[in-house]
Amino acid sequence: MKVYLAGPEVFLPNAREVLDRKIALTRRYGFTPISPGDLEVPATDTKRSKGVAISSINERLMMSSDMIIANLTPFRGVAADVGTAFELGFMCARGCPAYAFSNTSSSHFDRVARSYDGHVYTDAQNRPRGPDGLAVEDFDMVDNLMLDGGIEARGGAIITREVEAAELFLDHQAFEECLNIAATRFLR
Amino acid sequence: MKVYLAGPEVFLPNAREVLDRKIALTRRYGFTPISPGDLEVPATDTKRSKGVAISSINERLMMSSDMIIANLTPFRGVAADVGTAFELGFMCARGCPAYAFSNTSSSHFDRVARSYDGHVYTDAQNRPRGPDGLAVEDFDMVDNLMLDGGIEARGGAIITREVEAAELFLDHQAFEECLNIAATRFLR
Repeated sequence: MKVYLAGPEVFLPNAREVLDRKIALTRRYGFTPISPGDLEVPATDTKRSKGVAISSINERLMMSSDMIIANLTPFRGVAADVGTAFELGFMCARGCPAYAFSNTSSSHFDRVARSYDGHVYTDAQNRPRGPDGLAVEDFDMVDNLMLDGGIEARGGAIITREVEAAELFLDHQAFEECLNIAATRFLR
Repeated sequence: MKVYLAGPEVFLPNAREVLDRKIALTRRYGFTPISPGDLEVPATDTKRSKGVAISSINERLMMSSDMIIANLTPFRGVAADVGTAFELGFMCARGCPAYAFSNTSSSHFDRVARSYDGHVYTDAQNRPRGPDGLAVEDFDMVDNLMLDGGIEARGGAIITREVEAAELFLDHQAFEECLNIAATRFLR
């Protein structure tokens, strides 16, 4: 069973090392790891065509995978990496089991409220909103409801853990818990 | 031809009005609009089950759609709304034509560099990175390469326009341009 390892680890200075650790852990639980960056990017003329080539490789890797484990740890702001969100949606549409983890235990609501310095009010329909008027989703979820909902609908799970800042993208315990749950479901 | 209208407009204080304008424009170009919030959410016991119910409705609406137009205007930070990114990935996996727009003309690279106050350096592999060591994608793209790449691979387009801040989620010109391009391709 092939597992696509989605997440913003690709942006880390030591990406190769971190991805290799995730790949090794995935094998240890009995799955075949499929990781972005596993195929060589062909030479291209422009920056944009290089980006398109990488996207095409990652889509092919996803098409060859049976399951996804997505790292939804907030990236450059209050929410998950949008590339990872795209990939999670992609694998959900393919009907694949979907798992995710986040190395913070704060909910989507908590993080957005904090980004508004706690200035969240309730409108006439009892819906929480920021000072800019934008609604704040309050569904006891890790991130936007499409992400949590997509995972739940496919029998998956989202594991959260509070990890110290320096280890935010390096701690693999929550990831490993996803592997363990999926292995119990599919391999044991 | 049914078009799923993805975007963070659902969070606006005047969401219904804005969505109704997008629905009317979509009809004017000859498409059938499919918009999140078009179906009634059943009563649920918990916050979380309500979120899951909305996700399920939106997935069903996407499964009934033939195309997506996604609003990738940056939402609460440097990147697109993650729910919209999930939906774009979902429709790309279904092989549907995908279009998008953003009401800012700044590239992903420009926005991330600005979030680092311009402190972007180039590493030994000539890859731009922020002071936190995280790589900054530099592919002349509107957002993360999975989003731009997924749209391009399906023959779509991303339209960008610089819109004044107060109109960021209210200006429909770039959205209308997507409708026009798609109508030329599929309906004329």
